Amino acid sequence: MEKWDSNEGTSAFHMPEWMQIQFADQKQEFNKRPTKIGRRSLSRSISQSSTDSYSSAASYTDSSDDETSPRDKQQKNSKGSSDFCVKNIKQAEFGRREIEIAEQEMPALMALRKRAQGEKPLAGAKIVGCTHITAQTAVLMETLGALGAQCRWAACNIYSTLNEVAAALAESGFPVFAWKGESEDDFWWCIDRCVNVEGWQPNMILDDGGDLTHWIYKKYPNMFKKIKGIVEESVTGVHRLYQLSKAGKLCVPAMNVNDSVTKQKFDNLYCCRESILDGLKRTTDMMFGGKQVVVCGYGEVGKGCCAALKAMGSIVYVTEIDPICALQACMDGFRLVKLNEVIRQVDIVITCTGNKNVVTREHLDRMKNGCIVCNMGHSNTEIDVASLRTPELTWERVRSQVDHVIWPDGKRIVLLAEGRLLNLSCSTVPTFVLSITATTQALALIELYNAPEGRYKQDVYLLPKKMDEYVASLHLPTFDAHLTELTDEQAKYLGLNKNGPFKPNYYRY
Amino acid sequence: MEKWDSNEGTSAFHMPEWMQIQFADQKQEFNKRPTKIGRRSLSRSISQSSTDSYSSAASYTDSSDDETSPRDKQQKNSKGSSDFCVKNIKQAEFGRREIEIAEQEMPALMALRKRAQGEKPLAGAKIVGCTHITAQTAVLMETLGALGAQCRWAACNIYSTLNEVAAALAESGFPVFAWKGESEDDFWWCIDRCVNVEGWQPNMILDDGGDLTHWIYKKYPNMFKKIKGIVEESVTGVHRLYQLSKAGKLCVPAMNVNDSVTKQKFDNLYCCRESILDGLKRTTDMMFGGKQVVVCGYGEVGKGCCAALKAMGSIVYVTEIDPICALQACMDGFRLVKLNEVIRQVDIVITCTGNKNVVTREHLDRMKNGCIVCNMGHSNTEIDVASLRTPELTWERVRSQVDHVIWPDGKRIVLLAEGRLLNLSCSTVPTFVLSITATTQALALIELYNAPEGRYKQDVYLLPKKMDEYVASLHLPTFDAHLTELTDEQAKYLGLNKNGPFKPNYYRY
Amino acid sequence: MEKWDSNEGTSAFHMPEWMQIQFADQKQEFNKRPTKIGRRSLSRSISQSSTDSYSSAASYTDSSDDETSPRDKQQKNSKGSSDFCVKNIKQAEFGRREIEIAEQEMPALMALRKRAQGEKPLAGAKIVGCTHITAQTAVLMETLGALGAQCRWAACNIYSTLNEVAAALAESGFPVFAWKGESEDDFWWCIDRCVNVEGWQPNMILDDGGDLTHWIYKKYPNMFKKIKGIVEESVTGVHRLYQLSKAGKLCVPAMNVNDSVTKQKFDNLYCCRESILDGLKRTTDMMFGGKQVVVCGYGEVGKGCCAALKAMGSIVYVTEIDPICALQACMDGFRLVKLNEVIRQVDIVITCTGNKNVVTREHLDRMKNGCIVCNMGHSNTEIDVASLRTPELTWERVRSQVDHVIWPDGKRIVLLAEGRLLNLSCSTVPTFVLSITATTQALALIELYNAPEGRYKQDVYLLPKKMDEYVASLHLPTFDAHLTELTDEQAKYLGLNKNGPFKPNYYRY
Amino acid sequence: MEKWDSNEGTSAFHMPEWMQIQFADQKQEFNKRPTKIGRRSLSRSISQSSTDSYSSAASYTDSSDDETSPRDKQQKNSKGSSDFCVKNIKQAEFGRREIEIAEQEMPALMALRKRAQGEKPLAGAKIVGCTHITAQTAVLMETLGALGAQCRWAACNIYSTLNEVAAALAESGFPVFAWKGESEDDFWWCIDRCVNVEGWQPNMILDDGGDLTHWIYKKYPNMFKKIKGIVEESVTGVHRLYQLSKAGKLCVPAMNVNDSVTKQKFDNLYCCRESILDGLKRTTDMMFGGKQVVVCGYGEVGKGCCAALKAMGSIVYVTEIDPICALQACMDGFRLVKLNEVIRQVDIVITCTGNKNVVTREHLDRMKNGCIVCNMGHSNTEIDVASLRTPELTWERVRSQVDHVIWPDGKRIVLLAEGRLLNLSCSTVPTFVLSITATTQALALIELYNAPEGRYKQDVYLLPKKMDEYVASLHLPTFDAHLTELTDEQAKYLGLNKNGPFKPNYYRY
Repeated sequence: MEKWDSNEGTSAFHMPEWMQIQFADQKQEFNKRPTKIGRRSLSRSISQSSTDSYSSAASYTDSSDDETSPRDKQQKNSKGSSDFCVKNIKQAEFGRREIEIAEQEMPALMALRKRAQGEKPLAGAKIVGCTHITAQTAVLMETLGALGAQCRWAACNIYSTLNEVAAALAESGFPVFAWKGESEDDFWWCIDRCVNVEGWQPNMILDDGGDLTHWIYKKYPNMFKKIKGIVEESVTGVHRLYQLSKAGKLCVPAMNVNDSVTKQKFDNLYCCRESILDGLKRTTDMMFGGKQVVVCGYGEVGKGCCAALKAMGSIVYVTEIDPICALQACMDGFRLVKLNEVIRQVDIVITCTGNKNVVTREHLDRMKNGCIVCNMGHSNTEIDVASLRTPELTWERVRSQVDHVIWPDGKRIVLLAEGRLLNLSCSTVPTFVLSITATTQALALIELYNAPEGRYKQDVYLLPKKMDEYVASLHLPTFDAHLTELTDEQAKYLGLNKNGPFKPNYYRY
Repeated sequence: MEKWDSNEGTSAFHMPEWMQIQFADQKQEFNKRPTKIGRRSLSRSISQSSTDSYSSAASYTDSSDDETSPRDKQQKNSKGSSDFCVKNIKQAEFGRREIEIAEQEMPALMALRKRAQGEKPLAGAKIVGCTHITAQTAVLMETLGALGAQCRWAACNIYSTLNEVAAALAESGFPVFAWKGESEDDFWWCIDRCVNVEGWQPNMILDDGGDLTHWIYKKYPNMFKKIKGIVEESVTGVHRLYQLSKAGKLCVPAMNVNDSVTKQKFDNLYCCRESILDGLKRTTDMMFGGKQVVVCGYGEVGKGCCAALKAMGSIVYVTEIDPICALQACMDGFRLVKLNEVIRQVDIVITCTGNKNVVTREHLDRMKNGCIVCNMGHSNTEIDVASLRTPELTWERVRSQVDHVIWPDGKRIVLLAEGRLLNLSCSTVPTFVLSITATTQALALIELYNAPEGRYKQDVYLLPKKMDEYVASLHLPTFDAHLTELTDEQAKYLGLNKNGPFKPNYYRY
Repeated sequence: MEKWDSNEGTSAFHMPEWMQIQFADQKQEFNKRPTKIGRRSLSRSISQSSTDSYSSAASYTDSSDDETSPRDKQQKNSKGSSDFCVKNIKQAEFGRREIEIAEQEMPALMALRKRAQGEKPLAGAKIVGCTHITAQTAVLMETLGALGAQCRWAACNIYSTLNEVAAALAESGFPVFAWKGESEDDFWWCIDRCVNVEGWQPNMILDDGGDLTHWIYKKYPNMFKKIKGIVEESVTGVHRLYQLSKAGKLCVPAMNVNDSVTKQKFDNLYCCRESILDGLKRTTDMMFGGKQVVVCGYGEVGKGCCAALKAMGSIVYVTEIDPICALQACMDGFRLVKLNEVIRQVDIVITCTGNKNVVTREHLDRMKNGCIVCNMGHSNTEIDVASLRTPELTWERVRSQVDHVIWPDGKRIVLLAEGRLLNLSCSTVPTFVLSITATTQALALIELYNAPEGRYKQDVYLLPKKMDEYVASLHLPTFDAHLTELTDEQAKYLGLNKNGPFKPNYYRY
Repeated sequence: MEKWDSNEGTSAFHMPEWMQIQFADQKQEFNKRPTKIGRRSLSRSISQSSTDSYSSAASYTDSSDDETSPRDKQQKNSKGSSDFCVKNIKQAEFGRREIEIAEQEMPALMALRKRAQGEKPLAGAKIVGCTHITAQTAVLMETLGALGAQCRWAACNIYSTLNEVAAALAESGFPVFAWKGESEDDFWWCIDRCVNVEGWQPNMILDDGGDLTHWIYKKYPNMFKKIKGIVEESVTGVHRLYQLSKAGKLCVPAMNVNDSVTKQKFDNLYCCRESILDGLKRTTDMMFGGKQVVVCGYGEVGKGCCAALKAMGSIVYVTEIDPICALQACMDGFRLVKLNEVIRQVDIVITCTGNKNVVTREHLDRMKNGCIVCNMGHSNTEIDVASLRTPELTWERVRSQVDHVIWPDGKRIVLLAEGRLLNLSCSTVPTFVLSITATTQALALIELYNAPEGRYKQDVYLLPKKMDEYVASLHLPTFDAHLTELTDEQAKYLGLNKNGPFKPNYYRY
C-alpha cells in the first residue's frame, strides 16, 4: 500500500506558499466559530474546496422569490419525515428527473449498485458527507445507500447546491441540510445538523475541502473514536490532512482520492482538452483556425489545451519552467518560448501553471488589440488582474464572464471570467468526469470501511492502485471497450496477479 | 533523494518470470568461466543487454576479409601505444569522421565539455566501461575524458562494435578492447583486459547489461573497495543489481539510469512514434492510409505507435490488460478490443506489451492473407514464432528481415524480423535518442563520483530528479527552446527552488 | 461526356428535385403577390435563402414589448430623415457599438475602405440590397458607402434582423426597411420601399435568396435597363438565376458568389470543423473522448466534422454514396460503413449529405438509448423527423433546441434543433466567416459595376479567380501571414502573371 | 473572364515556360533520329516522362555481368516464340514471382479480370504501349490481355525496366522490347519493333511521356487511320497532346488520365504524406519531433508533407504565392512566412512548388549548419543546385543520395538526391498508388475503344467522372469499405443517377 509519505523528501520541497497561507486561515477556523465579520476569509476558504466537481449548470428553479430562510420553515416529506432542511421540498419531482438523467451517464455507480445486491459492503456504515450537492452527488449518495450505508449530508459550498436535487434527496429519505445561497452561519449550522444527532453517530466521513472534518475536530473530537476513516477529494482538504498528519494530530486513517491516477487524468488532461474550446467559444464565438496562441505551462492541463487548439488549426506556443515538460512540448511540436517573445503577436493567452502572476501588467500592456486572456490553471492568481484595476483603464462588461479592458489608446484586451478558471466559469464539467470522481469516492469509502485492522494507520493514504484500476474498469463499458485478461502463463511470466494491480506505483501512464 | 526501495511493495509483485529465469542463467555465469559449450546461454544473456542503444547502422568496412583474430595482431597507434585491441587501427580516420558527425547531433555532451573546461568534475576518475561501441559511445567516452576521467572500454555485445570507431578511439589514446564478431571467449578476454591492468584500478563502472560488473564481482571482488559507484542503463543489468541488493551483496552504490524520466520518454514514446513507421516502410513499402491495425498494449510504446499510425490515416484498434491504460486508449480515440475480435480483419498486428505469447498460433491461423505481424515491445517473446515452425507451413525469405509464412491454402503472413524488435532490427535509433542516454550516463557518473560521503549507500538509486531535469535542459538548445525562469516571488509561492527540482517524484509527466 | 475544355453537361445531370420543386414555388411568387394565406409556402421559400450568413446571436433588445408595427410609426433620425423603417430608431447607439465590434473582426472590408479613399470604385453606383441585417451586413453596407455607392436595403428573412443594427444604419443615413418579426406582407412592403422610390433607381442588385431580384422582375421589369448586374450569394438564389438564364429570361449579368472557392471553404470545411463541437457542447455538455460517432456524408462539411471529432478522441465512422469521397474517408483514417452496420452502437449520428431521409425511422428505432442525432448538412430534410411524430413516442423538451424522444420501452433519443441545421441553430457563425462572404460580395459588385462593356453578357458568372484570390489575400493580414511574390523569371517559367490568377479554374484546392 | 459553363481560357494563361521549352526539344526529336551525340538532350526528355509511376525498387538481378546487347542475342521463350527482346529470358521465373506479389496489391485490376470473364470489353483491341516496365505494369498488361486485347510493349525510360519482369512477360507470350540500360538508339529501336510489325497494326496507344505517340506521328502517320484513341498519363505527354490539338494536328481522340481526380489525390496528397517521412528517414535517420521545417508550396504535395510532419511533432512553416492556398495553410495551423524570415532557423527545407529557383544560393548561404534541403515538387529545378557547384564549396557524398555541401567556415548543408525528387529517389511509390494509375489507364482504354462513333472527336479529353468514380470504387474493397446506395427517392431528390456520376465536374473534393 502506497503512503503519501513514502515519497518523502517530495513534500519537503513542495510546501507552496499559498497552501501555507491558507492553512493559517484554516487554523483560525478551528479556533473560533466564524462570525459575520469573518465572512470574507471563510468564504474564500470555502470557495477553495474542490471546485472540480462543481457543475456550472444553473438551477432551473432559482427564480423562486421565496425569501424565507429554510431554517425557519416547517417542511415534511411525503413519508412524514422532517429530518432535513432544504429550500423547498415541493421541488422534489423536478430534482428526481435531474437525478435520473445523471444516472444514465454514471454507469459505474449504477454497476456498483447492481453488484452490491447480494453483499452490502457498506452495511452498518454511517456516513456523514459534505460536498457540492448536485444531481451527480445524489447518484453517489443513493449508491452509498444501496450499498448499505446510512448518510447525512451538508453542502461544501454556499452557492453550488441545486435546490431541487436537495429536495429530491430529502423526499426519498436522506437527511440533507443545504440550499443555494446559505449564509456563513447557515453553512456551519447545516454541518452541525449532520453530525450533532441524537442516537446517531457517524463512522465514516466523506469530505470536500475539509470543513466537515475540521468541524468535528473542533466540536466533537470524541466522535473520532468511532470513525473508521476520512475520504477527501480536494487539493485543499488533502493539504489540511497532511498538515494534521505532520502535526501528529490525525487520529484516523484518511484517503486522498484527489491524486488517484484515473481522477487526475480526467480532471485535467481529458476535461481541459474539451473545455478550453468550449469555454473560448461560448464566451467569444471566435474562430480557432489560424489563431496564434500561447499556453503558459505544459502540465496535464496545458497538454490538453495545446492538443485541442493545435487540432483546430491554431498555432500554439508554450512557456515552461520545467525542462522535462519543456522538452515534451518540443517533441509534441510546440515552439517553447518566453512569454515576452510572443506577447505582441498572439491572439490568445492561456495560463495553466498553478503559479501566480504569470501574466503581468507589463505583458498586458504589450498585447495587441483584441487579445483574449484567460486562466485554465489554478484559482485566480495566474493573471495579475488586480494590476488592471487602475484609473487609466476602462472596464466594459460585454457579456456574462467577458470584460473588455480598454487602454487609453483604444486597445482592448478581452478578459474572460475576470481571471478565474475558464473551465469552471464558462464551460461545464461533463457528467462522465464527475462519475470518475464519485466512483473513486465510493470505492475509497468501501476500502476504508472494510479494511482489516491494521492495514491503515493514522495517516494519509492514496487510493490503492488496484482500486484505481477498478474505477477505470467500471467506466470501460461506456465505450463498449473489451479488456483482455492475462492467461495464467502470462501472469506468471510478468509476475503479476491476474486481477491487478498491473503497474508499479511509480508508473507514469 | 529517491530510492527505488521507497516504492516498496511495488517490486514485490513485479518479479517477472523472465527475469527470474534469467537470473538463474546469470548465476551460472558467475560460477564458471563460459566455455564453448556454454555459448548459447551466454550469447543469449549478452543479447539481453541494453539493445536500446544499439544502432543498426551497418559498419562501412565490414567487407574486410582479414581473417586474423585481433588478439593475434600486433598493432600500434600513431603515438606508439599498443594498449588496445581492435580489428584494424588503420580504419581510424574513417571512424573519426563518424564520430565528428555524431558530435554534431549530441549537443548536450558537447555543452558538458565546454562547461567542464574550468572545473574537471571527473578529475581523478578511472572509469571502466562496457557498452555498445558506436560513434555515439565514442562521443560519450571523449566527453568523459574531457571532464577529467581516464577510461578503459570493452563491448557489451559481440556483434555491435563499429570497428572503425573502435580504431579511432584507440588511435586517440583510449584503451579499447572490442571488435565486431567476437567469440565468447574474446568477449570475456576483452573485459578482462579492461580491468586487469598493472598499476591502474578503476574507481567507477559504466555498465550495460551487467556483464562487466559481474566479471569484477567474480574475479576481482577486492576491486570494489576503491569503486565509488556503478552506473547501469539496461533493464537486465538493473535487474541484476536489484537482485544483488536484495541478497545483501551489493557493496557499492549503483545508479539505475534506465528509469530516468527523460530517457524513458525518448526510448519509448518519442522513438517508437517514428520508428514504427520507418520500420514498416523499409521492410514492406506499404501504404498506411486506410489500413486497419491492431496494437497490443497501450503503454508508452503502444501510445507512440498508435499516435503515428492514426496520424497517417490508419484505423487503429488497441488491446490492453490494464483498465487505466485501456481507458486512456478510449479517450485517445481508439476502440479497445480483444485480439480475437479484430484478428480476421486487420492488415497489421503490432505487439508492444512486454508480455509473452500475445500473438498465438491460433491468432496467426485466423489472420487474413497478407497480414503483417511485428513486435515493437520486448525481446522476441510477444509473438509465438516457434509455433510457426511446423511442417505444413512454408517460410519464404522475401527480403532481409521479411519472411512470408505460407499456409497450405496459399495464405501468406508477413512476419518482420522473425518476431524480434522491429525498431531495432529494421529501423535506426536516432542519434538524438542516444544523446539523451549518453548524457544521462555522464551525469550519473559525475553525481556518484562527487557525492559527499553518505549520500549514497550500498543500494540502487534512481537518477536524482534535478539531474534528470538537467539532462532535459541540455537538450533544449537543439530546438532553440527558451525556458522560463521563476521569479523569487513565484518560487516562494510554489515552495520551489528556482533551479529545480520542479516536480515531486511521483509526478507522472 | 466530359471534355477538358468544357464543363458543360454538368448542370444537366444536376438538377436536384428539391430545386425543381422550389422553383415551382418561386414561379408562383412571380405570378401572384403573396397573401396571408400563402404565408406558409412563402416563409418556407424565405427560410431557404442563404442561412449561412445568419448569425444566431440574439438581439439584445428583443424584450421590447412595443407592439406597434414599425409601418405605423413616425420616426426620424437625428438628421431629420425619415426615409427608413425600423423597429426603434432610439436603439441606434447600441447597434453602433455592435457594428464597431464587428468592424474589428472584418479587416478585409476595412482595408477596402482605406484603399478606396483615393478612388471610389463604386462612385455612382446605386445598390439595392436584400440580405440578413446584422452587424456584419452593416459593415458591408458602410463599406459600399465609403467606396462611393448609395444603398437602400431590406431584409431577406423575416426573423433575422437585429433591430438595433437596423436603427444604427438608419441613424447614419442608410434607408433601411427591416425589423425582426415582419409579417409576409411587411416583407414585400419593405422590399418595395427599397426600389419604388421617387427620383432614385438602382443600377446594382445585391441579393440573398433571390426575392428582391424576382420582385423587380415581376413589378418593375423596366428597371433592368439601368441595372448593370446582380450579385447573389445563396444556393437558392443562384439556382433561380440559372433557371432564368436557361429560360432565356436573364436580362443582366449575374454573379454567383456562392461558389467562389474561398467562401465555400470557410462556409463548409473551416466553419463546420469548429461548429460541430460547439453545437454539440452547448446543447448536450457531452464529452467527445471515446464516443462512437457516425458522420453521414464526406463532403467539405463531413470532412470538417470528422476531423474535429477525431481530434477530440472520438471514434468516427463515415457513410458515403460517392466512391471518390469514400476513398478519401478511408485514406483519412475513417471506417466506411453503411449506416445500418453501426447504428446500434454509435453515440452520435451526424448528417452532412444534402440529401433527404438519410436517417429514417427504422434507423431511429435501432439506435441505443441516449444516442444523439443532429443535422449539419442541408435544410431539415436529412433526418426523417416527421416519422417521429407518432403517438407511441413521447417528446420531451429538455433544453432549448434539445428534445428527448422517448420510446415505449424508455429508450431516449436526443434530437437536436428538431433536425434543422445544428451549426445555425445551436452554434454561431464566426464573424471571420461572414467577413469572407461580405468581401466577396463587395468585390463582385465592384467587378460588375466597373467591367468594360461586353465582358459580361446576360448570363450567370462565377467570381473571377483573380478576385477570389484577392478576397483571400485581404484576409491574410489577420494571421500576420506573409505571401511570397513570384520573381519575373519564375512567373515566366510558370507562364503566370505575377499578380495572379495562379491556378487554372479546374484546380481543386 | 470565367463563365460557369466553361473552363476555357484556363489553359490560355497556363502555358508555362518549361513546357514550351520542352516542346521545342521534342520537336527536334521528330525531325531527326536521335544520334549518339544527341543523347544528353534526349535522355533528358525521356526522364521527364511520368516518373510518378517509376518504382525505385532495385532489380534483384542487376549484378549480371552479361555485357552482350540484348539486340544481339537469340532468345526463345518456352513456347518457341522469339518475338521479344529482353535482357535474359531465363529470369522469367523470378519476375513471375514479382508479378504475383504485385497482383495481391492490385485488387482493382484483378477484379476487372474477373468481371471480364463473360464479356471481353477489349476483344479485338491491339494495344501498343510504352511505359515503365515493372511488376505493376505487368499486372496491367496481363489484365488488358484477359480483357481481350493483344499488346506489344516498349519502355518509356531507358533505366527503369525490371529485366526479370520483362522476361516473365516475354515468357508468357507478350512481345516486350525493353531492358535496363538501353542506349538512346536502343530506345527508339524498341519502340519501332512494337509498331513496325508484319500483319499487325495497333488500334490503341497507351503512352507515358508521348515518345511512342510521336514516333508513330513521325514514321507511320497512316497508322492513325486505324487507331481509335490514345491514353496518356504523364504531365509531359499530356502537354504534347494539347499542343498537337491546338495546332490542329491531333487526328484521333486522346484521353488525359493524368488529371483524373483519384489519380491526382493518390499521386500527390496521399503518397507524399507518407513518402516525405520515408525519404527523410532513409537518407538521414533524423528525428522529426521538435524539428523546425519550412515547406515551400501548399498544393496537394505540400499539404501532404505538412500534415505528416506536423503529426510527427515538427514545427512547420509554409511559403506560398497563391493567397487561397496561403489562407488554407493558415486555417490548417501553419505560419505563413517568406522563406527569408525563417531560413536561418529551420532544420529542414522542403520544396513542393513546381517552380524554379525557389531555394537560391542566397538562401543556402544563410541556412544553419546541418540544415537538410530536399525537393518533393517538380523535376530538379526548385533548388538552385547549380549555384552550389562553385570552387569554395566542398561536396562530400556521405551516403547514396546524400551529399554534404561544406562552406569554407565548416558549415554543412545536407542536400538530398542532388535536388531531384526525394519521393522518387529515396522512397518507394506504394503499389496501391500504382494500382490507381493502372486501373485508370485500363478504364480509359476500355472507354475509348468502346465509345460509340462521335462521342469523342479529335481532341484531348479527361476521363469521364463516372469512370473516375469507378476507379475509386474498385479500390474500396481493399479497405473493407461499404458504399451506401441511393434510394430511388433520394436519387430523384438530388437529381442524380443512382450509379453516378455523383458530383459536377467543378467539384473540388
